[in-house]
Amino acid sequence: MDPYKSLKEEAFEANQEIPRRNLAIFTWGNVSAFDPYRGVFAIKPSGVSYDKLTVESMVVVDLEGNVVDGKLNPSSDTETHRIIYRDLSDPAAEDSMRGITHTHSPYAVAWAQARYSVPVFGTTHADHGAEEIPCTEIMSPEAVKSNYELETGNLIVETFRKKGKNPLYMPMVLVAGHGPFAWGKTAAQSIYHAAVLEEVCKMALLTLTLNPQADVLPEYLVRKHWERKHGPDAYYGQ
Amino acid sequence: MDPYKSLKEEAFEANQEIPRRNLAIFTWGNVSAFDPYRGVFAIKPSGVSYDKLTVESMVVVDLEGNVVDGKLNPSSDTETHRIIYRDLSDPAAEDSMRGITHTHSPYAVAWAQARYSVPVFGTTHADHGAEEIPCTEIMSPEAVKSNYELETGNLIVETFRKKGKNPLYMPMVLVAGHGPFAWGKTAAQSIYHAAVLEEVCKMALLTLTLNPQADVLPEYLVRKHWERKHGPDAYYGQ
Amino acid sequence: MDPYKSLKEEAFEANQEIPRRNLAIFTWGNVSAFDPYRGVFAIKPSGVSYDKLTVESMVVVDLEGNVVDGKLNPSSDTETHRIIYRDLSDPAAEDSMRGITHTHSPYAVAWAQARYSVPVFGTTHADHGAEEIPCTEIMSPEAVKSNYELETGNLIVETFRKKGKNPLYMPMVLVAGHGPFAWGKTAAQSIYHAAVLEEVCKMALLTLTLNPQADVLPEYLVRKHWERKHGPDAYYGQ
Amino acid sequence: MDPYKSLKEEAFEANQEIPRRNLAIFTWGNVSAFDPYRGVFAIKPSGVSYDKLTVESMVVVDLEGNVVDGKLNPSSDTETHRIIYRDLSDPAAEDSMRGITHTHSPYAVAWAQARYSVPVFGTTHADHGAEEIPCTEIMSPEAVKSNYELETGNLIVETFRKKGKNPLYMPMVLVAGHGPFAWGKTAAQSIYHAAVLEEVCKMALLTLTLNPQADVLPEYLVRKHWERKHGPDAYYGQ
Repeated sequence: MDPYKSLKEEAFEANQEIPRRNLAIFTWGNVSAFDPYRGVFAIKPSGVSYDKLTVESMVVVDLEGNVVDGKLNPSSDTETHRIIYRDLSDPAAEDSMRGITHTHSPYAVAWAQARYSVPVFGTTHADHGAEEIPCTEIMSPEAVKSNYELETGNLIVETFRKKGKNPLYMPMVLVAGHGPFAWGKTAAQSIYHAAVLEEVCKMALLTLTLNPQADVLPEYLVRKHWERKHGPDAYYGQ
Repeated sequence: MDPYKSLKEEAFEANQEIPRRNLAIFTWGNVSAFDPYRGVFAIKPSGVSYDKLTVESMVVVDLEGNVVDGKLNPSSDTETHRIIYRDLSDPAAEDSMRGITHTHSPYAVAWAQARYSVPVFGTTHADHGAEEIPCTEIMSPEAVKSNYELETGNLIVETFRKKGKNPLYMPMVLVAGHGPFAWGKTAAQSIYHAAVLEEVCKMALLTLTLNPQADVLPEYLVRKHWERKHGPDAYYGQ
Repeated sequence: MDPYKSLKEEAFEANQEIPRRNLAIFTWGNVSAFDPYRGVFAIKPSGVSYDKLTVESMVVVDLEGNVVDGKLNPSSDTETHRIIYRDLSDPAAEDSMRGITHTHSPYAVAWAQARYSVPVFGTTHADHGAEEIPCTEIMSPEAVKSNYELETGNLIVETFRKKGKNPLYMPMVLVAGHGPFAWGKTAAQSIYHAAVLEEVCKMALLTLTLNPQADVLPEYLVRKHWERKHGPDAYYGQ
Repeated sequence: MDPYKSLKEEAFEANQEIPRRNLAIFTWGNVSAFDPYRGVFAIKPSGVSYDKLTVESMVVVDLEGNVVDGKLNPSSDTETHRIIYRDLSDPAAEDSMRGITHTHSPYAVAWAQARYSVPVFGTTHADHGAEEIPCTEIMSPEAVKSNYELETGNLIVETFRKKGKNPLYMPMVLVAGHGPFAWGKTAAQSIYHAAVLEEVCKMALLTLTLNPQADVLPEYLVRKHWERKHGPDAYYGQ
């Protein structure tokens, strides 16, 4: 019996959603599923197209970066996923991070390439995060030289720490000059947030096209939308 | 026998059109179907994806806001639908409002986030409304605190009253910082108007991208297009 | 035996291409097929959705505007088609106009609403017309009052006469504040030109977004591309 | 036995990818597959739509421009392909160019019509080329008169020579006022690069829409992304 079967299944299913949701062409995106109790995550193998993926081809990696299961090379972004799980997730929290998605969806990439955080222009954004979606700094030459993918993770972690952001409340980030990462309570929710991020980035770009001086949503409206979905008295859904 | 069966069927069918017409991703839109004689409407349950919907899952609500049929929570936007039916529809009118659609379609959201009413730039717009598509004000902090979704309905009602607009002649509105609502003589027509609104918003944004000083359509042309489809001597269709 | 069967079949088939090519949503487009020897054309019935169309539902109209076959009302744009056939086609010419398409495709509508002719920015355009795609003037109040759809035809005819344009060499036009018309040697080719027009309008808008001072293609390059496809020594195709 | 069967199959398969990847409408694109040992390439016949193509309909042409197999006229762009193979490929190199794709994909055409090379704004670009994607000059009147399609090839070759670019490291080019060409180690890889080019052009246009002063990616980051996929110590993929 494969002890990682259900974790690999979860990662496999979520990776299939990348082309279905048009979040990346070819192999330009990857999802991982995390088991905080065993400290391992299953992730897409590197450079394999989505229609060639199988549950068995998923690669299982531990928080020290060792491949513990799987015959293929894991995604080249594996170290980034690892650092995010290691430093931004809190296994003790009930709603802990258990999935991460990285894509090159075009509107999110445009904001990342413009090196802009995404302001909260409307309720679609506020429903999923009560603050701007942060964009990191450009990575330093030293960090690039040392261990690029690991340092991409560090850059994300630092961005959240410096800005005092809680990754449970803001499940999306843009890496400057690169593209989006998103996470969630499951691998499926991380894909959901990656799709939300692309849609919100599209809406925000179109908003600025119409009105370059567009005002952000007032704080009391941002708060209301966030609370009705995520607050202690949330009343959205079943 | 379920006395609300056909009303729930109408709402169910119309909700299925949201993903088919690409008017919202995930669960970001809802349609209701109204019976003015019984004073009730059937609406999508909250947070349920379109492919999981059934006729039975629709929720029936009366004009006082009581759930009169259905086991699930109705859409979180139910109070907005209720106020629009209660205050903007005229059961005595032959062409009364009997359906409402709310979506987060991206071009309509962009205009709502830019907080701009949509000028009549062409005949595509004039065919469906002989005036600008109004955008509400941003809701006050007091209204947000009191009963947000009900106040969204009030905001729409006030926008029509202040501007002296007749909802039979202008079946679309943008809620500032939020997104579009549209209505019609049936639930299906409300979806039609939601799709028209998205297309007109896209055309208007592209028009301003080409020509930021674009002139609106002269009033005599607006009037002509409206009249040939909706006036006493309308000659469009069969 | 129905003497108009093949003409109606040609019109029916071409109308089906409108939704397939995403040139209009709902019923916002129509194609006609013309028989210059009998002086009649078959056209889409008004307000009928494409999936409800049948060969039998096509309406046959003569150049005086009389319905000579069909039970339904013809397209509300019938008079525009009629005037274009009557005044811009030359039955004696071998490559005479035998089909017209009208749509509300969004990029072409944006140029029409901006009231701009489309400059020749590249070879995609030059392959299909060796000059700008003309945009008409806004129709006068008098013309709108008299017979709107017929006057739309007159506006197109006048635009070609004033600018000395040959409709065989420029098979596309934008009606200011309204949208595109295109024609061809067959109904199918008129749809082809309607799709070309939408794609060229999209490319031209994106070009100006990148470079508001973009130069037009030099005349010798425009001429070369036109001639290799349409000149006496054309060598494109089989 | 047809000695060109596998070459024609490769060209046929790659041409089918043009409509699947939405890289051109109608017949506006062509792919060729090159055999450097025999000095011949198989290319799409001119003006034939993708759904009418067969393996047998592919045309085989040698490096002197003679048709050596096939009954149809080869693509009108055949001379451009020929010059690129003749002057930019190096049969001795292990990773020699063996496929070329030409399309009229809209974002790449927009950059070509704006006559701009595409700056490296992000890692999506750097993953596929460690430098700007070059745009040629506009062709001179003399070159157009002499042999247009051959001179298009010469223009591309000169652009690479003047700028000291290695076609193995930059597999994409924009012909000013016309559109994109891309190549690769196989016909399939040339299509891949044509799709990359369209996506990168879209991302770059959206980036400039958000931030007209957007900075290019620092050279050390460009280099890192290129090297991890293509350098001597590449570690992307299996």
